Amino acid sequence: MTAATDVLDKLVQRLGETGVLQDPQEMERYVSDWAGDRLGMPLAVVRPDSTTAVAEVVALCGEHGMRLSPQGGHTGLVGGALPEKGGQEIVLSLERMNEIRAIDPVNFTMTVDAGCILETVKQAAAEHDCDFPLSLGAQGSCQIGGNIATNAGGLNVLRYGMMRQLVLGLEVVLPDGRIWNNLKSLHKDNRGYALQQLLLGSEGTLGIVTGAVLKLVPLPDQSRTALLGLPSVEAVIALYGLARRGCSDLLTAFELIPRRCIELAMEATPTLGDPLDSAYPWYVLMEVAATGPVDLGAMLEQLLEDGMERELVLDGALASSEAQAGQLWQFRESMLEGQRLRGEHLRTDIAVPISAIPAFVERASQRVQHVSPECEIIAYGHVGDGNLHFNILPPVDMAEAEKYRHLHELEALLFEVLDEFNGSISAEHGIGRSKQSAYLARLSPAERELVEGIKTLFDPAGVMNAGRLLPPR
Amino acid sequence: MTAATDVLDKLVQRLGETGVLQDPQEMERYVSDWAGDRLGMPLAVVRPDSTTAVAEVVALCGEHGMRLSPQGGHTGLVGGALPEKGGQEIVLSLERMNEIRAIDPVNFTMTVDAGCILETVKQAAAEHDCDFPLSLGAQGSCQIGGNIATNAGGLNVLRYGMMRQLVLGLEVVLPDGRIWNNLKSLHKDNRGYALQQLLLGSEGTLGIVTGAVLKLVPLPDQSRTALLGLPSVEAVIALYGLARRGCSDLLTAFELIPRRCIELAMEATPTLGDPLDSAYPWYVLMEVAATGPVDLGAMLEQLLEDGMERELVLDGALASSEAQAGQLWQFRESMLEGQRLRGEHLRTDIAVPISAIPAFVERASQRVQHVSPECEIIAYGHVGDGNLHFNILPPVDMAEAEKYRHLHELEALLFEVLDEFNGSISAEHGIGRSKQSAYLARLSPAERELVEGIKTLFDPAGVMNAGRLLPPR
Repeated sequence: MTAATDVLDKLVQRLGETGVLQDPQEMERYVSDWAGDRLGMPLAVVRPDSTTAVAEVVALCGEHGMRLSPQGGHTGLVGGALPEKGGQEIVLSLERMNEIRAIDPVNFTMTVDAGCILETVKQAAAEHDCDFPLSLGAQGSCQIGGNIATNAGGLNVLRYGMMRQLVLGLEVVLPDGRIWNNLKSLHKDNRGYALQQLLLGSEGTLGIVTGAVLKLVPLPDQSRTALLGLPSVEAVIALYGLARRGCSDLLTAFELIPRRCIELAMEATPTLGDPLDSAYPWYVLMEVAATGPVDLGAMLEQLLEDGMERELVLDGALASSEAQAGQLWQFRESMLEGQRLRGEHLRTDIAVPISAIPAFVERASQRVQHVSPECEIIAYGHVGDGNLHFNILPPVDMAEAEKYRHLHELEALLFEVLDEFNGSISAEHGIGRSKQSAYLARLSPAERELVEGIKTLFDPAGVMNAGRLLPPR
Repeated sequence: MTAATDVLDKLVQRLGETGVLQDPQEMERYVSDWAGDRLGMPLAVVRPDSTTAVAEVVALCGEHGMRLSPQGGHTGLVGGALPEKGGQEIVLSLERMNEIRAIDPVNFTMTVDAGCILETVKQAAAEHDCDFPLSLGAQGSCQIGGNIATNAGGLNVLRYGMMRQLVLGLEVVLPDGRIWNNLKSLHKDNRGYALQQLLLGSEGTLGIVTGAVLKLVPLPDQSRTALLGLPSVEAVIALYGLARRGCSDLLTAFELIPRRCIELAMEATPTLGDPLDSAYPWYVLMEVAATGPVDLGAMLEQLLEDGMERELVLDGALASSEAQAGQLWQFRESMLEGQRLRGEHLRTDIAVPISAIPAFVERASQRVQHVSPECEIIAYGHVGDGNLHFNILPPVDMAEAEKYRHLHELEALLFEVLDEFNGSISAEHGIGRSKQSAYLARLSPAERELVEGIKTLFDPAGVMNAGRLLPPR
């Protein structure tokens, strides 16, 4: 423990008392994540306020072989931001690095500290008639650095891509404490290996992102939302093809929602009435957005007409005001709350080819119901990304320990079905801790060697966010 | 030489006589590139026709320490596909692997052999009402594998991104001969480090791409083209901001063209008349494309009107037919021919922030003209990508040896100015051989270590496309 005490003393010397939290009560808000999960307490939470300070902390911890865990808004869903058990890890929070460094609306770029909150970034862009188009439920608390480390996705990936497509430059403190300044504001740059791409999605295991150049888009000045009722998942997929073409790729969202989710939303928010005149087995919540002279209302009406003519769409509501659109989106938000109210359940974040969604939903539902007829299946998600949240709600009266074991089994079963479809066990949430064994089990020997080799290249001592993504050394 | 003879015998045994070319005359068409450059002859050109055969060739060459150079359509512009001097390298051509393996228009994906020609891929997509939106001058001969290895860009990057954004899955033969099958047709997949991104842009130095899953988009069913005359580069940049907003991000091209290029085009293609009533210092060639009910004509007219009102646009021609649009695009193609007719000249492919284009063009022009008042500067390019081809034509009567030395000096000067703007010496062409020293000189020690470390991780013996991107061992 003397080494640790020595390091902590030096950290306090460098960062001051407010920069190094050691009181368990003060550290409390850094130890659990969005879902309320927790593992252990850290040795300390350090809060550097500059890139240089981050570099000094990393170098100092490296000299003493201390393990470091970089932390953003801890809104992740795979346990990646939870301090490890045993209390030997130092959490490095980026929260004090929260300045917008520059905005260049002519270049459609913005340079920010990694600790900036996504919502703040979006607001700052909007002041220049631009948008940073990443859109997540957690955007009021997640940080850009975490979005980068996890290659965050969200609702608008269909049109704008994941974080990987939205970052032009990075500033990174490497695990040896050197600063890698790659803060370029270039839309095109084709020099050598894609080092920067490695950091995107590396989950804090290859270095600490301290700053980034983000790509902006024109802020849409109009958008239209529709909620449609459909007879089958097949109809949803066929409508998606029509919508891509009929809406000139101006689609910003195309969400699949099963009837059960509409019910859960109404349970969670009793003021919500049934959105359409009748109940339908499947719904699509879609949005188109544009700048300039495009008649989005006519575009959606035409699509609705075409969809009805082909018997893909049975009924639909087109929001005629922002308030109405907000109400339609309320179903998407309240259905999450409705699931949460049902207590412990299996949340997944999987991907299959778009064309395979109907067959996958059918096959996976059959397999799950065969093993566990009393469970409820809720499959919703981002159709255009082939990304489903195929969630399973256990019976409310099942004992907690039994629930945990049972859901774990069902997850394994679901992943087996996913393998038959050449799908992904993590479409956007990442690996962290909770998907690690399923991830490793699916790597070929060659992939495992390359992945381990990259970790060793960047972080030979294995001190950076150890145990996330890959097993600890 | 016995080792080489032994390997060649085994290659012939495996691939047959037609699979292993050793006759200098037969090898002739594999030794030079698009620009007509050449260095040396290879030991042999091998032409495997399957992924397994590629893997066997790579393993066999690896066992004997033979250097291998993968080759696509050899249309690169940085000397990456040229066999090295000394005749000890084996060229591995992918040309016999040219099957479209599968098209899934519902998933908007296509699985292809690496040797497929880009134009063939685009045609196959069009048969399913889809487009593979990479668009290059060389698309009639470049191959998908080469597009991947060089992370190709082109005309439509503004809307659809570079190759990096258009590839969902890869099949790769690693330098030790193992096949890495990552042929997933998933639009979202967030599992672990971005290994696949490393291969994109690796210029054949980390492995041989044998197959790929490509992302398709709906084939636009309408497009409109306009050629506009503008007073200054500043006006071009301001118009670009207006166009992004006024055209609802349906822009597929926004090309900057100086007056001199219009003249060069008319010199090369005498049937082309002056495109507008008067001559203007700068032109913009722009295109918008859409599917579905959008009035693109009205959209462009509105933009033209707004641009004129703000005195950004002085005059403009809107093509009212496909033939007229083709004629406007003819200027873009003929101006390249016009440059070629001027003989040896400096071609560059650089990037700066879009907002810095006017200041960069001014500063770089001043510096070049100060050193070399007799040279002609031609700066054109993809405005939305901040990507300029800032080319320099020496006086026609300058001696060849003098030209070469002089242009080399001017390139170094230009790159110095670029450094002041935090720009890129290679926006899309890559590094290959011709940009290697300028690339290496700009790497920080940490970057150099990481880049070399990645090369060593994938290719410890340094046999794969040795000497390109990085110096040979």
